[in-house]
Amino acid sequence: MSSTTEPDGPPPTTPLASASLASTQDDRDLLLYESRLERPIRVKAPELERSGRLRHLIFSGQLTVDLLEELGSVADVIRQLSRHRSGQDFLINLLHHKRAMLYFTQPSTRTFLSFMAACQILGITCNEVRNPQTSSETKGETRFDSIRMFSSYFDLIIMRSPIARLAESCAYLMNDLERSGNRSVPIVNAGSGADEHPTQALLDIYTLQRTFQFEGSTDSSLSTRFEELQKLPGCDGLTKGLANKTYGFCGDIGRGRTVRSLAMLLANYENVRLVFIAPDHPKLVMRDDLRQRLLAKNVTIHELSSFETLLDGKPVIEQLDALYMTRVQKEHDTPEDADCFAKIDFSRYCLSKNLVSRMRPYAPILHPFPRDQHSGEIPPEIDNDDRAMYFRQARNGMWIRSALLAHVFDADGQILRYFRNEFQK
Amino acid sequence: MSSTTEPDGPPPTTPLASASLASTQDDRDLLLYESRLERPIRVKAPELERSGRLRHLIFSGQLTVDLLEELGSVADVIRQLSRHRSGQDFLINLLHHKRAMLYFTQPSTRTFLSFMAACQILGITCNEVRNPQTSSETKGETRFDSIRMFSSYFDLIIMRSPIARLAESCAYLMNDLERSGNRSVPIVNAGSGADEHPTQALLDIYTLQRTFQFEGSTDSSLSTRFEELQKLPGCDGLTKGLANKTYGFCGDIGRGRTVRSLAMLLANYENVRLVFIAPDHPKLVMRDDLRQRLLAKNVTIHELSSFETLLDGKPVIEQLDALYMTRVQKEHDTPEDADCFAKIDFSRYCLSKNLVSRMRPYAPILHPFPRDQHSGEIPPEIDNDDRAMYFRQARNGMWIRSALLAHVFDADGQILRYFRNEFQK
Amino acid sequence: MSSTTEPDGPPPTTPLASASLASTQDDRDLLLYESRLERPIRVKAPELERSGRLRHLIFSGQLTVDLLEELGSVADVIRQLSRHRSGQDFLINLLHHKRAMLYFTQPSTRTFLSFMAACQILGITCNEVRNPQTSSETKGETRFDSIRMFSSYFDLIIMRSPIARLAESCAYLMNDLERSGNRSVPIVNAGSGADEHPTQALLDIYTLQRTFQFEGSTDSSLSTRFEELQKLPGCDGLTKGLANKTYGFCGDIGRGRTVRSLAMLLANYENVRLVFIAPDHPKLVMRDDLRQRLLAKNVTIHELSSFETLLDGKPVIEQLDALYMTRVQKEHDTPEDADCFAKIDFSRYCLSKNLVSRMRPYAPILHPFPRDQHSGEIPPEIDNDDRAMYFRQARNGMWIRSALLAHVFDADGQILRYFRNEFQK
Repeated sequence: MSSTTEPDGPPPTTPLASASLASTQDDRDLLLYESRLERPIRVKAPELERSGRLRHLIFSGQLTVDLLEELGSVADVIRQLSRHRSGQDFLINLLHHKRAMLYFTQPSTRTFLSFMAACQILGITCNEVRNPQTSSETKGETRFDSIRMFSSYFDLIIMRSPIARLAESCAYLMNDLERSGNRSVPIVNAGSGADEHPTQALLDIYTLQRTFQFEGSTDSSLSTRFEELQKLPGCDGLTKGLANKTYGFCGDIGRGRTVRSLAMLLANYENVRLVFIAPDHPKLVMRDDLRQRLLAKNVTIHELSSFETLLDGKPVIEQLDALYMTRVQKEHDTPEDADCFAKIDFSRYCLSKNLVSRMRPYAPILHPFPRDQHSGEIPPEIDNDDRAMYFRQARNGMWIRSALLAHVFDADGQILRYFRNEFQK
Repeated sequence: MSSTTEPDGPPPTTPLASASLASTQDDRDLLLYESRLERPIRVKAPELERSGRLRHLIFSGQLTVDLLEELGSVADVIRQLSRHRSGQDFLINLLHHKRAMLYFTQPSTRTFLSFMAACQILGITCNEVRNPQTSSETKGETRFDSIRMFSSYFDLIIMRSPIARLAESCAYLMNDLERSGNRSVPIVNAGSGADEHPTQALLDIYTLQRTFQFEGSTDSSLSTRFEELQKLPGCDGLTKGLANKTYGFCGDIGRGRTVRSLAMLLANYENVRLVFIAPDHPKLVMRDDLRQRLLAKNVTIHELSSFETLLDGKPVIEQLDALYMTRVQKEHDTPEDADCFAKIDFSRYCLSKNLVSRMRPYAPILHPFPRDQHSGEIPPEIDNDDRAMYFRQARNGMWIRSALLAHVFDADGQILRYFRNEFQK
Repeated sequence: MSSTTEPDGPPPTTPLASASLASTQDDRDLLLYESRLERPIRVKAPELERSGRLRHLIFSGQLTVDLLEELGSVADVIRQLSRHRSGQDFLINLLHHKRAMLYFTQPSTRTFLSFMAACQILGITCNEVRNPQTSSETKGETRFDSIRMFSSYFDLIIMRSPIARLAESCAYLMNDLERSGNRSVPIVNAGSGADEHPTQALLDIYTLQRTFQFEGSTDSSLSTRFEELQKLPGCDGLTKGLANKTYGFCGDIGRGRTVRSLAMLLANYENVRLVFIAPDHPKLVMRDDLRQRLLAKNVTIHELSSFETLLDGKPVIEQLDALYMTRVQKEHDTPEDADCFAKIDFSRYCLSKNLVSRMRPYAPILHPFPRDQHSGEIPPEIDNDDRAMYFRQARNGMWIRSALLAHVFDADGQILRYFRNEFQK
């Protein structure tokens, strides 16, 4: 389950600390890990595993195609079990002896609640610290001492932090403790700094997996819809699964870490094309480091500035197998950006009923949410369209996070066995 | 279980939004529901039910006499089960697969904790959002998108909001989702704006039901106390139950939504008289819309300005079967009110040991709490009087809310069956 | 289980309220209890018990040597059960029908989370109020009304407050309610004002009990390590258990309530010496009231200003059986203190690798945590030393608090029986 061989050094991000600034123990702690952080992911990924299983989830780069398939299957089983009282009872007792700490020093209601629900499905008891400053930190406690405190009381730390790669450093701290015979617990990265949010990528992929099974529960038979779709003009090459598809990304490509992670994961599938549609502004178009990484994976990429630009001779909006919309992350705007952005017509990067009507009949519309009512990148009149997947995407996030937690606690095998024995006999 | 036929258009309240101000999607969302909000409650109530059972609890007007009896019986059984370990174990496993969201953007520690405890008795796992601004809203998310997010992760939304009738709009949103085949969950209104707080009315009624059973656990036999009471002077007409009683309300009649809701529910019982005792100030006496509604129900009402005013030839304090005290809601005072109120002798609307000694020997004293230590409407020296029901009222709130949740999840039948089979054989 | 006979009037602390200031009901409530607060602990302790068992834990003075032994054994069993799934399942169902309120109006992440985890191990559901001002209090509610509200909904109140002896007053309130036939729940003091934090003392003692069992799980046999230690120079008199030891305390002796409580408890053991090492400043050295109380117990005390001062002819750092380090509590500094302290060389009260290397080979280093990265009283390079007990101390706190809660709910007997029947047969 080791990662693939892309040139995957760390993205250019604010370093945790630099030597000259290491005046506090917090700084010195992070400096200690600096050299480990700089290794390529193919070297680091195995350190985050135990017996071919994730111990910590820190990077989306740890999510191989095989692992994504495996987690998706477990999530599918969990949601099926959850439709029956006996299945719910099985799940709620599965990990009721485990206690999780949700350490969210960067606010995110949606991710937070999704993880809460994911834990609760499996019976895991949740605890939280959400203030950027815990009372201990105001008394001079280091971040690492706080993390060790959490690991004393709880069995899992799910963390979200504005500090780039703090989650990664904490995983190494846990590994060091394990090696010296001390208590150590898994770390799950729920968003760190500007670069990584692996469980968002996980839920995006899971939503695509679900969609491209072409097995909507409203179908008359499980195969009908797919066969009908293949008969439509332009859809004759349609296949099941994530391979052989054209994926569109629209909006704030440059600053959205979800685009970044999802694009990298999609590049691992066979024969995919990635299309990026963004206003022509250096902060909003793809960052060069992502471009280089994608090219190194031999994936075809197109960078466009309109839904109407031609691709294979037709407007790109009509050619996409899936469209990933994003919010313009205004909270990162500088005053200069604001001036510059005022001249951009962002409405050209918003969906409309008309645009959606021209999309392929099966092409799902995704959005990491929240969407912005003021920008209106997805107006609510589209919500009732069958292709609007963004609300189901949220619920998918809950199921796939449950699957991830079951995997980390090595309880996925039990789930699959129970399902086979009780529901499939 | 449809509502009765009073002229019950919405109370005069700040509208959710007006067309001219509908500049945001939030405003447009609420405008969409405007016309539905304005229908009379007898039309709206059935939409909030499924198969003769509450789906959403939004108005106290949904609580018919029959339903109040039914919920009261379930609450009585839940509290009896809770006295035994086997009963507790049954309850705690009853709904342990359900997850509730307590969305309290208007603070209320007491109501919040009461709902938490009510959920926990049945094993329901609680989650909360209590900041007026969730992080998603600061990113431009609409209220309706937030509610749909909650409905993605949780099985029930208990909401308290400063926005009048937001809970009602959310119930319609859930109904619309249900109709279009999407996920939809029940909404329970835990207080919206100035007009509705149906579970407070529910617990007030439950407390009166308990009191007027005349079956205190300290009685030598279950019927003795009632028979002795009937022999007392002036008590010969005493009956069990809420009918045939004189109910007093004292304090801030004009601004207290609890008085409003309770009075409307009591008006549904046979042969009741309602006495309102308040300082003679337009903000503090009964609002005319309530007066008209009560009169339309043919209930006898008296509006007095002192405990000493004569009723049937005796000071009213000696004639009441129950007394509902309230806090003067100073947080709603305008600067002009403050001037005006300074001239009122509020101490005349406070209880004293002497006043209580003149009350009927069984007449319960209720208060929605918190009481105000500075106003002193109920001084603590009364707390040990047998008629002081306000602390038991709080605990009753927990039991009756549990009963409500069991009803909403259609688990009340299971509770009654278990009780019959295990405790009554 | 009554307390011993030391002259143990209340420590000199800010009174709850003085008569002249009793203008609010809150003040009058506390004044009512004033006379009870001033009685010696040997009179008060029995009121906090029921049938020889703690009903409320308010003072560390309630923790007799026998009770400490008993709680330590239960904690040992709980941690052993927690290593097996069947034991975890037993524990998680043991008190799952109980609901706790953690009422923490003085912030403390560490103590808070430790109690949360301790509850969760036994299945107790946790609720919290952590804002200094609950919404009810802003509406004029008294503290006692708030506490009665909590006791209406929950089965246990764990409270931490900046108000000295509020927890004690609440325990008396609960006793009064019990006496008058009302609902009443146990109070556990998680820190009140500057004087008491009994569960911290409890976990410190438990950590010493564990250490002085000399039964580290890494030993080749359970007795080897102790026998080898006895052969070392200067260790020939080494015994198991807390008696016959020299305990060192270093740092902010004057203002640390943990030092205060632990010293008083250690004084109950046979043949102990207490050594206090602090800068020579009136705020930092031992307060005279503690000195007098310890002397009244006939315990030997030494007050020194350096690790190098001779004790029995050798530098004291080499003579200690255990060392309790503390953080200088700068949050209590006045502006004058700050000036004065600037002249003190605090580095002389910090540990170093070199100092540790001179300590006895078994002598545990404790710290109530958090440690201060800026003062550096324990630099992280010591963390990997076998004698560094401070992280294990935190986890011990969780186990011993679980044991305490099991004791308060009279469930400890069940735990011991289950262990005997299922794990020792």
